[in-house]
Amino acid sequence: MQKKYVYDFSEGNASMKMLLGGKGANLAEMTTLGIPVPFGFTITTEACAEYYALGKKNPEGLWEQVESKLALLEKKMGLTFGDNETPLLVSVRSGAAASMPGMMDTILNLGLNDAAVAGLARKTGNERFVWDAYRRFIQMFGNVVMGLKGHKFEHVLEGVKHTRGVEYDTQLTAEDLKEVVAQYKKVVVAETGTEFPSDPKEQLGLAINAVFESWNNDRAILYRKLNSITGLVGTAVNIQSMVFGNMGETSGTGVCFSRNPSTGENIFYGEYLMNAQGEDVVAGIRTPLTISALEAQNPEIYRELIGIKDRLEQHYTDMQDMEFTIQEGTLYFLQTRNGKRTAAAALRIAVDMVGEGLIDKKKALLRVDPNQLDQLLHKQLDPVAKQKAESITKGLPASPGAAVGMLCFDAHRADELARSGKKVILARTETSPEDLIGMNAAQGILTSRGGMTSHAAVVARGMGKCCVAGCGDAKIHEDAETLVIGTHVFGAGDYITLDGSTGKVYAGQMPVVDPEISGDFQKIMEWADEFRTLKIRTNADIPRDAKVAVGFGAEGIGLCRTEHMFFEGDRITAMREMILAKDVAGRKAALAKLLPYQKSDFKGLFETMGGKPVTIRLLDPPLHEFLPHEEAEQKRIAGILGIPLDELRQKIKSLAEVNPMLGHRGCRLGITYPEITAMQATAIFEAAKEVMCETGAEVVPEIMVPLIGNVKELENQKAIIDSVAKKIAPEVKYLVGTMIEVPRAALTADQIAGVAEFFSFGTNDLTQMTLGFSRDDVGKFMPDYQDKGILDNDPFAVLDQTGVGQLVEMAVKKGRSVRGGLKCGICGEHGGEPSSVAFCHKVGLDYVSCSPYRVPIARLAAAHAALKEKKE
Amino acid sequence: MQKKYVYDFSEGNASMKMLLGGKGANLAEMTTLGIPVPFGFTITTEACAEYYALGKKNPEGLWEQVESKLALLEKKMGLTFGDNETPLLVSVRSGAAASMPGMMDTILNLGLNDAAVAGLARKTGNERFVWDAYRRFIQMFGNVVMGLKGHKFEHVLEGVKHTRGVEYDTQLTAEDLKEVVAQYKKVVVAETGTEFPSDPKEQLGLAINAVFESWNNDRAILYRKLNSITGLVGTAVNIQSMVFGNMGETSGTGVCFSRNPSTGENIFYGEYLMNAQGEDVVAGIRTPLTISALEAQNPEIYRELIGIKDRLEQHYTDMQDMEFTIQEGTLYFLQTRNGKRTAAAALRIAVDMVGEGLIDKKKALLRVDPNQLDQLLHKQLDPVAKQKAESITKGLPASPGAAVGMLCFDAHRADELARSGKKVILARTETSPEDLIGMNAAQGILTSRGGMTSHAAVVARGMGKCCVAGCGDAKIHEDAETLVIGTHVFGAGDYITLDGSTGKVYAGQMPVVDPEISGDFQKIMEWADEFRTLKIRTNADIPRDAKVAVGFGAEGIGLCRTEHMFFEGDRITAMREMILAKDVAGRKAALAKLLPYQKSDFKGLFETMGGKPVTIRLLDPPLHEFLPHEEAEQKRIAGILGIPLDELRQKIKSLAEVNPMLGHRGCRLGITYPEITAMQATAIFEAAKEVMCETGAEVVPEIMVPLIGNVKELENQKAIIDSVAKKIAPEVKYLVGTMIEVPRAALTADQIAGVAEFFSFGTNDLTQMTLGFSRDDVGKFMPDYQDKGILDNDPFAVLDQTGVGQLVEMAVKKGRSVRGGLKCGICGEHGGEPSSVAFCHKVGLDYVSCSPYRVPIARLAAAHAALKEKKE
Repeated sequence: MQKKYVYDFSEGNASMKMLLGGKGANLAEMTTLGIPVPFGFTITTEACAEYYALGKKNPEGLWEQVESKLALLEKKMGLTFGDNETPLLVSVRSGAAASMPGMMDTILNLGLNDAAVAGLARKTGNERFVWDAYRRFIQMFGNVVMGLKGHKFEHVLEGVKHTRGVEYDTQLTAEDLKEVVAQYKKVVVAETGTEFPSDPKEQLGLAINAVFESWNNDRAILYRKLNSITGLVGTAVNIQSMVFGNMGETSGTGVCFSRNPSTGENIFYGEYLMNAQGEDVVAGIRTPLTISALEAQNPEIYRELIGIKDRLEQHYTDMQDMEFTIQEGTLYFLQTRNGKRTAAAALRIAVDMVGEGLIDKKKALLRVDPNQLDQLLHKQLDPVAKQKAESITKGLPASPGAAVGMLCFDAHRADELARSGKKVILARTETSPEDLIGMNAAQGILTSRGGMTSHAAVVARGMGKCCVAGCGDAKIHEDAETLVIGTHVFGAGDYITLDGSTGKVYAGQMPVVDPEISGDFQKIMEWADEFRTLKIRTNADIPRDAKVAVGFGAEGIGLCRTEHMFFEGDRITAMREMILAKDVAGRKAALAKLLPYQKSDFKGLFETMGGKPVTIRLLDPPLHEFLPHEEAEQKRIAGILGIPLDELRQKIKSLAEVNPMLGHRGCRLGITYPEITAMQATAIFEAAKEVMCETGAEVVPEIMVPLIGNVKELENQKAIIDSVAKKIAPEVKYLVGTMIEVPRAALTADQIAGVAEFFSFGTNDLTQMTLGFSRDDVGKFMPDYQDKGILDNDPFAVLDQTGVGQLVEMAVKKGRSVRGGLKCGICGEHGGEPSSVAFCHKVGLDYVSCSPYRVPIARLAAAHAALKEKKE
Repeated sequence: MQKKYVYDFSEGNASMKMLLGGKGANLAEMTTLGIPVPFGFTITTEACAEYYALGKKNPEGLWEQVESKLALLEKKMGLTFGDNETPLLVSVRSGAAASMPGMMDTILNLGLNDAAVAGLARKTGNERFVWDAYRRFIQMFGNVVMGLKGHKFEHVLEGVKHTRGVEYDTQLTAEDLKEVVAQYKKVVVAETGTEFPSDPKEQLGLAINAVFESWNNDRAILYRKLNSITGLVGTAVNIQSMVFGNMGETSGTGVCFSRNPSTGENIFYGEYLMNAQGEDVVAGIRTPLTISALEAQNPEIYRELIGIKDRLEQHYTDMQDMEFTIQEGTLYFLQTRNGKRTAAAALRIAVDMVGEGLIDKKKALLRVDPNQLDQLLHKQLDPVAKQKAESITKGLPASPGAAVGMLCFDAHRADELARSGKKVILARTETSPEDLIGMNAAQGILTSRGGMTSHAAVVARGMGKCCVAGCGDAKIHEDAETLVIGTHVFGAGDYITLDGSTGKVYAGQMPVVDPEISGDFQKIMEWADEFRTLKIRTNADIPRDAKVAVGFGAEGIGLCRTEHMFFEGDRITAMREMILAKDVAGRKAALAKLLPYQKSDFKGLFETMGGKPVTIRLLDPPLHEFLPHEEAEQKRIAGILGIPLDELRQKIKSLAEVNPMLGHRGCRLGITYPEITAMQATAIFEAAKEVMCETGAEVVPEIMVPLIGNVKELENQKAIIDSVAKKIAPEVKYLVGTMIEVPRAALTADQIAGVAEFFSFGTNDLTQMTLGFSRDDVGKFMPDYQDKGILDNDPFAVLDQTGVGQLVEMAVKKGRSVRGGLKCGICGEHGGEPSSVAFCHKVGLDYVSCSPYRVPIARLAAAHAALKEKKE
């Protein structure tokens, strides 16, 4: 039997997402629910996959199945495809299993040709609408299917508008539009050498294949990459009878959300335009009305809309993002899907829905994407400064958070600047998928056109970027690279500040403040703590950071980098003395100066953390990093040390390394200079002893030796630590453990666990060495690697589970085979990245440690991991 | 029952080496064979191990067992320990299971005190001998047991000689020696605050413990490190009744070898001194007579010696190194062991013994240490230059090979110079174990005193270093740092040349030539080929090297580094043009210039190798390495490229990397610049096609993509190679494989083997990344690591089997699980290191590839691996 490639809307349901795509499955589900959906059918994602498998050929039987469903559709609608009296028009839309807004191409009004136009005009009595539909169809079809540049058509349209002396498209008459169509057809012939296809079935066949093709266009590939979408075989194609929102003033179209996607408030939210097609609302060309305005304009339709959105939300038990069209007074639903939302909205909706009894806590937790919380953990404008400051204008608060950066008017340039470490605000009249790369790179986005559901707004919210959209007062001239707001003229490189939560725009750089956790966020965090089994620690070097992290729920310090303590104030001078000392005696004298600093740092941390565990890593970076590289500073240090400048330079030179990452650092320093380890151990034990005395809290320092690759290194360092402990603080309990960050450490973890009392995976360095990637140099090829599909993710952001993860898993197993229940954690950047946290949970780590601002993300990610495990 | 810690010589045999040490087991074996050995007993190595385990205390029962065997010894000898009429004197010697010449301490004449001296003098009627023995005993005991510096005693001795107006020790009378003894005793009291112990049993107890202690002295630890001796628990202690070679002119002592240890010739070989103790021969203070002189002096003893040496060689089926003493006309054997020998001697002895039917081929192969062959593969003096050149003097040809270097008179300084890349000749009056570090670092060693069995000679032969010993014409003044030979005066840093095969010394730097394989060497190689299963390839980049390697038996090229080809002549300019090009077109233009060079290089290699496999690695190093760093050259290149100097400098700067080892190199270059890969593939296929046409040999290039860490990288590069092949040489068969040198490649070898047609382990880089050691920077801590016992070997010389080896084994298994019989080889430096070759055999590699001059070593090592496997 032939494979079934085509399902009509009455044949599917929501569970068939992988086969029918998200949109197709939902249309089928809505149809089944009795929602007024224009009838149609869906070509499966399998058909798309086979199209590619066959070298871009339709699988056998596909077209026959399409024709048969087309016949059914004609029968249902009482219309005929290509008929010149009652012509059937359809939309052709892509729809993959994962939502990819704006990525895939859509064609409306397919089925129109000269004959059908005449028929439809007679039937509707609205000649203008029909010619407008025809010219839109030719434009879209020409663009999407025939590959013609949009501006060729825009040029024609602008020309006719100019000739007719009108400003807006809507001012064009039927006659004007006939002229536009005629010229459009000429453009097609001139550009492609072929006539615009007039046979509707030919149009449909070409359109289906164009949708298949769009699955692998650059924008789609980039979107999948940015959103880590993998495992999909292709896109489905939805063919649906057209309904028209632009059939005059009793028609319209809109987009709505069952709750506010920005705040999460349980209030019906949306925008619509009368006498318009759907694209007009989303593309942001005309600024739409808020949905509440519809109540006054057409209370009956508004009530129907409310009823349906309630049914849909109850049915899907999630906030819905819906598209509707009113055709001459009749409401149609074109689409519903779980709505994208800001992190704040996600939290509020999840908590509210638990309160409403719609979902349980577990579901609520899984509804919030841990990655998204990052938005809430972004800085906000300083409330005091904000009160005093005058904004220079206000746009729509499209995506919350504050952003400060230098203006940039080009997406690629924004990307370049960001790579070079600059903070950028991307300013565009409106954004399109081509701007994705710059939006991703920018701190925030400012547009002068478009509403809350414009491309800029939707994408920015998805990315958790601050966005002020539709800021009509802002004149953005991309070519001239100027932003003019009233009397203010800003050029590229000038600083501005955006407040995405209020829509306000400020000149210059405003102060920003750190976020805090309260309300819904706090509740979700509490629920997360109920379910997660992973402990969450933080990477903090100073009491201030530790305090922030504890506020965010950190249960300990997983990594205190002692070297950071050496850069402050006078310390660096003592540190340099130590490094440049000629002998052990000189080194010891300098170390004696550093000891009180270290001790007071550690006391501060122990005090802040109360009895919570604190893991202190011994000196790690190559000593060269501490040395002065500028002449003035070199002179000063030479003076302090009483050595000739030349000698100092010679010493600095001799400490330079070809590959410092793989050089004289980590425990290698403690082995060649045991007095450094002894000083650090002394500082730790004295601090612990004193804090225990002063506060009564039990302090059990966890001393971590970095860069171990060989158990004998650890034995060597542990002996020094043990002997210091015995001498100065025999009453203090402590653990000596190691970073697992050299591949050999993972490979010989069974040997190392014989000595180490805990393992902490330093996945930054482990990634560098396992992949052979220097984090400092990887920019030279990483973009190519991502573009060419060699890497899906930056392995320094998302743990490489296949390679690095294999070593982590191996080390945990080997380590625990020797020391049962060995405490294992992770302290690389990955400790705050959700998919990596899930991996840590899976391989049985005890905790993850991450930067303070990622602690809440890690808490939720850990809960997700535990909940998903139970599901499986 | 109590453990047996003491065995008398009649209780043991040769198989008890681990327990009794080499010397003890051999003394027992000789006793059992009926060889005249002074009777005695041995304290086991276990006793030494327990001594350490107990925190340096004798295990329970040890002393009682010693006393009981002492009683037996007294009975056998008819002498009494500590007796003032017929006193028993003993020697106390260390003896571990592995030979460690000169490393452990020895005490002779133990049992002497004032009473015994009187008794012995009466008994022997030779007062002078007795007082000489007494002063020697005090000196040795004071030094070894009481820790007194040797020069304190030497000072006394020289003083008495000076007072008496004599030059040599032998000129001192009994009375003089009494005075020496009296002063020695005062030295002991002055230095230690205690009297010299007079109770012989107390002396024995202290001596035994001193031997135990010597197991862990610095020299012993260094020797074990240099010789990779591990797995031993301690040293045995041999207590043996003394016989005296210094009882007058009918007494003597000697060292002999059953065959010539330098050439292997089957001729009795040795040296002796009349009226001397054993130390006098070995230490090289007096220059001894050759053994053949004994035939005339005492034909009976000589015949007895010949008879015993024949029996011993037959018994042990190996060349023997024996020590004997003649006491007043009676011959005693003190020791026999398998003799150390030069590589040439090892080959000759092995081949001869097979000819003599003494051993079979397998045994013969195992008798030759592959590491030792390196000596024969060292350069020799150019024969032409040698014929013309006048040597300035001649010493003993103590260890063969040629050495050219700058003079150095201090062992530690020699070590420093060698570390900084200098070639050094160490010149010393005589060497002692304290000089080991410098001997190891030097190219060659020159001594003015000592014979063929002097410390310098024995150690140099073991190390395979060139050594000219006992060069009496050479006046070496360590303090003044001068070497005076006739009218020539050389200072530190002046160049000289040594020929260790003839003993000749030349002024300045002489030309040297490469070795070749013939005669016994050739035969051993042929036998090795019969038994080995590993194939041996070579690392060669140019036809000349490939030719040398084929001469040495290479069966293919395992690694041709294409980048080396770019440094010659004009090529580097084209290479720089390529790197500095602004765009793809510029790069392609420069690559087009490089193509003919590459092609002709590859043709040369293919021609040289006939049909043998040739593995070509694509461009590997970071591009920065090719760029000019000096201003003049930068100016020239800027001129050629027609760009401003500043722009060039900017570009060079932008290509610099923080960690080039982990940067933009290897396949990463081919991925960002696919045109480089395409050019190299084009050169390979065109060369292969033409050579096949021209020579008829089938050329199957093996194209190796470096630095793969992710199968997608290989897919990317293979696609380029395949497309070039298809286009220009569809008839050429080829393989595309990869280096496994990034840890992730080993971890994901199953994925990679889906694409790779062969694996070649790049263990240099794999070691760098697995251990996190930069080869360029490791010198900063490696000496400390070796001194502190953290590393036994330099992991860049000897494969780290536990860590890196684990990845190699994993990759082979994973790779072959996907692609059965996947061809696997190794092309790092380790491919020519015997223990690493054995590992490669064990984990099932198909071949090892090493530098041309190590091919014979690899062949023999591979045979050893195969033979040892069969044994197990």
